[in-house]
Amino acid sequence: MIGRLVKDRVLAAKQAINELYNTGYYGRPKGDTLELTLIEAAYLLYKKKLDIELNGRILGFEEFFTEASKMQQYFELKYIVYKDLRERGFYVQPSVTDFRVYPRGGHPGKTPARSFVYVRSERIPMPLPDLFTSLNAADNVHKQMVLAIVDEESDLTYYEVKKVNVKGAMPAISSQGDLIRATLLEDRVIVWDASSSQHLHLDGFYGKPLDDERLQLSLVESAYLMQRGLISIGSSDTAGFLDIDGFSVVASSIEPDFLRKYKAYANLRDSGLVPKTGFKFGTHFRVYSQVSLTGKMPHSEYLIHAIPWDHVFMLPVMSRAVRLANSVRKRMLYAVEDRDTIAYVDIGRIKM
Amino acid sequence: MIGRLVKDRVLAAKQAINELYNTGYYGRPKGDTLELTLIEAAYLLYKKKLDIELNGRILGFEEFFTEASKMQQYFELKYIVYKDLRERGFYVQPSVTDFRVYPRGGHPGKTPARSFVYVRSERIPMPLPDLFTSLNAADNVHKQMVLAIVDEESDLTYYEVKKVNVKGAMPAISSQGDLIRATLLEDRVIVWDASSSQHLHLDGFYGKPLDDERLQLSLVESAYLMQRGLISIGSSDTAGFLDIDGFSVVASSIEPDFLRKYKAYANLRDSGLVPKTGFKFGTHFRVYSQVSLTGKMPHSEYLIHAIPWDHVFMLPVMSRAVRLANSVRKRMLYAVEDRDTIAYVDIGRIKM
Repeated sequence: MIGRLVKDRVLAAKQAINELYNTGYYGRPKGDTLELTLIEAAYLLYKKKLDIELNGRILGFEEFFTEASKMQQYFELKYIVYKDLRERGFYVQPSVTDFRVYPRGGHPGKTPARSFVYVRSERIPMPLPDLFTSLNAADNVHKQMVLAIVDEESDLTYYEVKKVNVKGAMPAISSQGDLIRATLLEDRVIVWDASSSQHLHLDGFYGKPLDDERLQLSLVESAYLMQRGLISIGSSDTAGFLDIDGFSVVASSIEPDFLRKYKAYANLRDSGLVPKTGFKFGTHFRVYSQVSLTGKMPHSEYLIHAIPWDHVFMLPVMSRAVRLANSVRKRMLYAVEDRDTIAYVDIGRIKM
Repeated sequence: MIGRLVKDRVLAAKQAINELYNTGYYGRPKGDTLELTLIEAAYLLYKKKLDIELNGRILGFEEFFTEASKMQQYFELKYIVYKDLRERGFYVQPSVTDFRVYPRGGHPGKTPARSFVYVRSERIPMPLPDLFTSLNAADNVHKQMVLAIVDEESDLTYYEVKKVNVKGAMPAISSQGDLIRATLLEDRVIVWDASSSQHLHLDGFYGKPLDDERLQLSLVESAYLMQRGLISIGSSDTAGFLDIDGFSVVASSIEPDFLRKYKAYANLRDSGLVPKTGFKFGTHFRVYSQVSLTGKMPHSEYLIHAIPWDHVFMLPVMSRAVRLANSVRKRMLYAVEDRDTIAYVDIGRIKM
């Protein structure tokens, strides 16, 4: 079987429709011709199912592969992913986001595709808006979105990306009368009174005991409790009290991304979840569905990192975050500020 | 027992030497007086072993703690670490790097201190030169260096930091005659010849097979094999061959930290180790002591990240790297360019 290289396509005669399309769903029949992408053609050349002709001459694999990689950006990356998917037994067609992949047992003309696969190099930073474009393209037609990342040694990792809703079962804490007095010392807040400390810690899992009487609150916890009208925060410097704006200014000077973190924190708490620091995991939060200190400490379900809408993912960093989350049986979620609300994007490794 | 707050010290009379120093090794006897740091005094106040007087008035815990945090930077952080170490049963004394900690069963005057503890807030970036200053201070007097990191919720994580030597048992690969021909395509290098591909992969664990004939090499592998006179790399653009400088320029344009990575790579290979990409772990390399493809694939021992000497650690990022390495039973090492050589710094979580 011979195909002719014409610009960035390889065209084969009618017989190819029978031999390549009808048996393996390679290419797309266009009238009496089968049209193949460079990637499909390279794979068929490797499989010795196709010879490729240019100007009356048959090209060897090295020659065709080298030419194709000049014609199409990221040709090798995409070839590696295409070959891998094919060798795992999937039928694959080109798509707006690199590839459409059919479910096992399905094929073009019989079943709709199941996944959109988006190929990226480990080395190339991935802007969140690009990821959202692909995710929305997949969502709109109810496809699974798969991110295929090729590392410097051409190893492949597949990730499923999806938007999720999160919800917990933690009851909101109630006021016990007067505002609870607390003091901002350097970069943390201390509640001095023993019974208030216990109330906040035991009933809401806020803060961490400094000792058996006093409680330390993090900056986001303090801002949330202040916003909810439960505590008042004095400044050790001025001996006066801070309002929420004043506190935010101080907190932002201590922690430059305080406001972004706080918005995600407040949204999680408002959704009945219990976010605590995720420092040990390198993320902003680890998140529990519910915590009762009288029972056994539950397992936290999510690691959540708050990012701006124009965040750029460094893929080695993302890979590490997801791998670590999965190794401790948690989901890795990114909390993205989306106008007045927060969108949660779940990124998890999958086997294809 | 009463102590007087004098500047940033608390001074107690002779009796305190008996009651506080001789029984618990709090403070330092200076003639007839026991001198306590603010941290020691706050802890003794909390333990109700000491009252603190200023201008004839006894200070409450809140008042003293608030004053002390104004007088000493990171007072609360250091208090939290001091309290934790004390409650774990260690005797602790102040030191150039925050604290000296005595071994279990040891105490001042009887045994030398075992560790230097250096306290940092999770939020404050840690420059590598600062870490080296502390590490060298500890090394010079043969102490263990411990980094105590306090997170935003005042949870503590201890890390041991040490310089290590690394060495593997992989024999260097030998030339089989002619230079092996390879081509740089976009951001990776392909070896086209089947027997050369096998030699590089099977005998040196270089590259990854593209298929049963061809081998893909990463940029650092390619540079190392070129430097060792084993391969020649053609450019698909110019149809000419690249020299090592030309290749480095191209590689650096693909991967901005190529040269730093390459220096660590070459040093590891020269030490008989087998570095492969650590992308899945979010580091530059995972490193094997030896690899034989005829046997079972061994477990890689290290994750190694190459950093410049003026690197600034973001502690949540460092925490994630160490946690992930430990969760897959590897050591996390940083390869630091140190003039013409590479220093390896091992950072691992420890329980005190």
